[in-house]
Amino acid sequence: MRRADRKQMRKKSIHPCQSTDKDVIKEAHAENLMTNLSNAYASDLLPSKEGKDLTKCFLLQVVNILLHYIEKTFDDKSKILDFHHPHQLLEGLDGFDLELSDHPESLEQLLVDCTDTLKYGVKTGHPRYFNQLSSGLDVIGLAGEWLTATANTNMFTYEIAPVFTVMETVLLKKMCGIIGWRETEADGIFSPGGSISNLYGILVARYKQYPEIKARGMAVLPCIVLFVSEQGQTPFCVVATAGSTVFGAFDPLHDIADICETHKLWMHVDAAWGGGLLLSRKHSCRLSGIERADSVTWNPHKLMGVPLQCSALLTREKGLLGACNQMQAEYLFQPDKVYNINFDTGDKTIQCGRHVDVFKLWLMWKAKGTYGFEVQIDRYMELAKYFYKVLKKKDNFKLVFDAEPEFTNVCFWYFPPRLKHIPKSFERDQELQKIAPKIKAQMIVEGTAMLSYQPCGDKVNFFRMVFSNPATRQTDVDYLIDEIQRLGKDL
Amino acid sequence: MRRADRKQMRKKSIHPCQSTDKDVIKEAHAENLMTNLSNAYASDLLPSKEGKDLTKCFLLQVVNILLHYIEKTFDDKSKILDFHHPHQLLEGLDGFDLELSDHPESLEQLLVDCTDTLKYGVKTGHPRYFNQLSSGLDVIGLAGEWLTATANTNMFTYEIAPVFTVMETVLLKKMCGIIGWRETEADGIFSPGGSISNLYGILVARYKQYPEIKARGMAVLPCIVLFVSEQGQTPFCVVATAGSTVFGAFDPLHDIADICETHKLWMHVDAAWGGGLLLSRKHSCRLSGIERADSVTWNPHKLMGVPLQCSALLTREKGLLGACNQMQAEYLFQPDKVYNINFDTGDKTIQCGRHVDVFKLWLMWKAKGTYGFEVQIDRYMELAKYFYKVLKKKDNFKLVFDAEPEFTNVCFWYFPPRLKHIPKSFERDQELQKIAPKIKAQMIVEGTAMLSYQPCGDKVNFFRMVFSNPATRQTDVDYLIDEIQRLGKDL
Repeated sequence: MRRADRKQMRKKSIHPCQSTDKDVIKEAHAENLMTNLSNAYASDLLPSKEGKDLTKCFLLQVVNILLHYIEKTFDDKSKILDFHHPHQLLEGLDGFDLELSDHPESLEQLLVDCTDTLKYGVKTGHPRYFNQLSSGLDVIGLAGEWLTATANTNMFTYEIAPVFTVMETVLLKKMCGIIGWRETEADGIFSPGGSISNLYGILVARYKQYPEIKARGMAVLPCIVLFVSEQGQTPFCVVATAGSTVFGAFDPLHDIADICETHKLWMHVDAAWGGGLLLSRKHSCRLSGIERADSVTWNPHKLMGVPLQCSALLTREKGLLGACNQMQAEYLFQPDKVYNINFDTGDKTIQCGRHVDVFKLWLMWKAKGTYGFEVQIDRYMELAKYFYKVLKKKDNFKLVFDAEPEFTNVCFWYFPPRLKHIPKSFERDQELQKIAPKIKAQMIVEGTAMLSYQPCGDKVNFFRMVFSNPATRQTDVDYLIDEIQRLGKDL
Repeated sequence: MRRADRKQMRKKSIHPCQSTDKDVIKEAHAENLMTNLSNAYASDLLPSKEGKDLTKCFLLQVVNILLHYIEKTFDDKSKILDFHHPHQLLEGLDGFDLELSDHPESLEQLLVDCTDTLKYGVKTGHPRYFNQLSSGLDVIGLAGEWLTATANTNMFTYEIAPVFTVMETVLLKKMCGIIGWRETEADGIFSPGGSISNLYGILVARYKQYPEIKARGMAVLPCIVLFVSEQGQTPFCVVATAGSTVFGAFDPLHDIADICETHKLWMHVDAAWGGGLLLSRKHSCRLSGIERADSVTWNPHKLMGVPLQCSALLTREKGLLGACNQMQAEYLFQPDKVYNINFDTGDKTIQCGRHVDVFKLWLMWKAKGTYGFEVQIDRYMELAKYFYKVLKKKDNFKLVFDAEPEFTNVCFWYFPPRLKHIPKSFERDQELQKIAPKIKAQMIVEGTAMLSYQPCGDKVNFFRMVFSNPATRQTDVDYLIDEIQRLGKDL
């Protein structure tokens, strides 16, 4: 379709009224607003004088596009994605031009750009999107993120983020309490993701053992290492994992805590993925011993389904994050303020600007209650068990581990008929290695489902199914199994 | 007002129709939807069956609250904030309860929570909000962020963020070109903020000089330092600043580049704040020499007014970020994919999950064109000059520097009449030190304006005015001067 035709179509399909009750709004009115948008530019919006109505109209049109996308996301008959190669996007698909120019585009064109951006993207909330640990589209979390964007502030002081910084303390207390620490003595910070939360954990561990690093740097330290090896060096910290990315495995936290206590080592638990399981009374035992950790990484943007980014680093001891990371930059954090500056968070982080990641989590917690998260997470565990049981019965699938899954990850191979009866050998594995990528590639091209695969150690490419998407139902699981067989049987 | 009364009021004031054309929607219909919301919970929304209409209705109500807030933000007669102390928020203001419970709240209550969150927050887009380098509310950027939240994906692979990863390459190329590098040979990454972008710059600098660090760690390096001092050690990198936070000062980049070339040192330019000035043909000369840098930090969430977070680290040499930061984790980034994996960005960063910060910038660039940014930035420079000239004429104000401002920062003291004629002395400065905090505290309490103050070296607390808010007009500048005098004259 040519650009001009698409514009014409757009005029018909988008108007702000459609989103409420299109029958009662006069067509003429909508037509008039659309005419405005095709001749209007960003500079006509607020804060421009007389920009109020246009701003409202434009934003409602954007919301209309988003609502339409949300509806499609949850429709299992819609495709997850409309696949194209990078060079096709770069060259411009059907008039969708990514290049930036010196001159502005009309508001109407921007709406077309928004539609196209979503059209060529991936619906990560689709019931058959199993590709990542972070998946699903939580409507409350989404609303929280829209509000956060509108409030557009920075977490670094109470002064400019009074509600959000206090919400952060409320959430951190809650999470520390759930871990099993004394809330009044614990501390933490929300960071842009699990890697950076882990970085904070290591920085604090190192600072606790070697506070002189703050003034004198790495050079005054012995050669310190994170993991003890036979070769010696000076260990200072053990990092345990609660919920590994591929297998969903949990380290034995009590055993590790015993060793850490004996040798006076910092114990950091990377529970980025597994942390959410603490909210399930039935399954939280997997993390037993986490209360003995010194620091914990926990990403609500994974199992708890909060929109990305939302990650916390929690410490059992209060004050360490501040002592470790403060720069006492008076030009950023003035001490002579009208309020209690303990709520200024800037000196606890290595960041200056810090995005507000707490509101969406707070709003979701309000909306679901702790029990609501529990119901959701228990359902994922049930689905994983169901999936495991179904696969176990099928002789063209083989589970990577025989035992029931510890978590919502289920790893498995699919064997096309031609490979099914060949015994394990280097040659057989060479062939098996290619199966998952081929099936996945075809799934992407057809847009029917998405799940991850990877090799690991001596195991050639296997699929990793994972449940963290609230839209997924048992029928989607059945569908996935059929789909893998359909796409793989002739490979 | 009691909680029950507020709920009642809310029922009247919020309904989804109001945002389009409230006259034509029947009151009964709205009443019906509201009844639904007061008895409905998050679990009734999509992906729940039959959740479609409720989801639409709920999100439109949220948008209605946001539109109302946006309108108030740009109204200079509205207060910037309704100040309260942290303990008041923690204790719960007028029924606004931050504590999290085990049980869910109704959708209607969540709307009240959203309204309250905005009510007690700070309007960072208000025309008289001058408090930070990041300020203003760009409507297009906002729309971009709403869409980003709805798409809810992760920048780490093309697979799950096809449009956004390609947009990132388009933007990075554009920015590298503007710096003056050969686009095809340059590279970069968007990170969660300036500090982390600077961290990437230093990591790359260190890696370039000592690639063995990747396999063998810090211990094999000499004691390396960033800045050369008389004491020696081994310098490897010089960090220059283009636009300092308080004074808006620019380091002489050509002189620094000469030194770096002679001594073969990496040159990193922190242009987090000043980078945007490159878009002004009139003022970009301030950054002359930046094209000789090896890496540059540039935060579009500062001068360019993109909603926070939006920060880029740019390198002149392609491939270094990947070589420095890659972990070759096959379980995250499979090499055997259906598309060109050069568009997978995960191995360039220390993050795994990475928020989509590019779309809002891309959409704003489409909306304004490069020239649109230029017009906006040139206007800030004009306002700074105007403000400087007005202050210069007033004998109860004193500029920290006599010269015309280099950038949009203007630093100054206000002298109340009782201090005006006292010559500089320790005792006078002790008194002057208290003036800015007192005026600022009163401004916050009254919610009339917000600007920053800080001491610096031997200079006691002075105000820093800064222009980066597109809503600010000359009348707001005049207002600020009057306001400082009104609040300060009797101190």
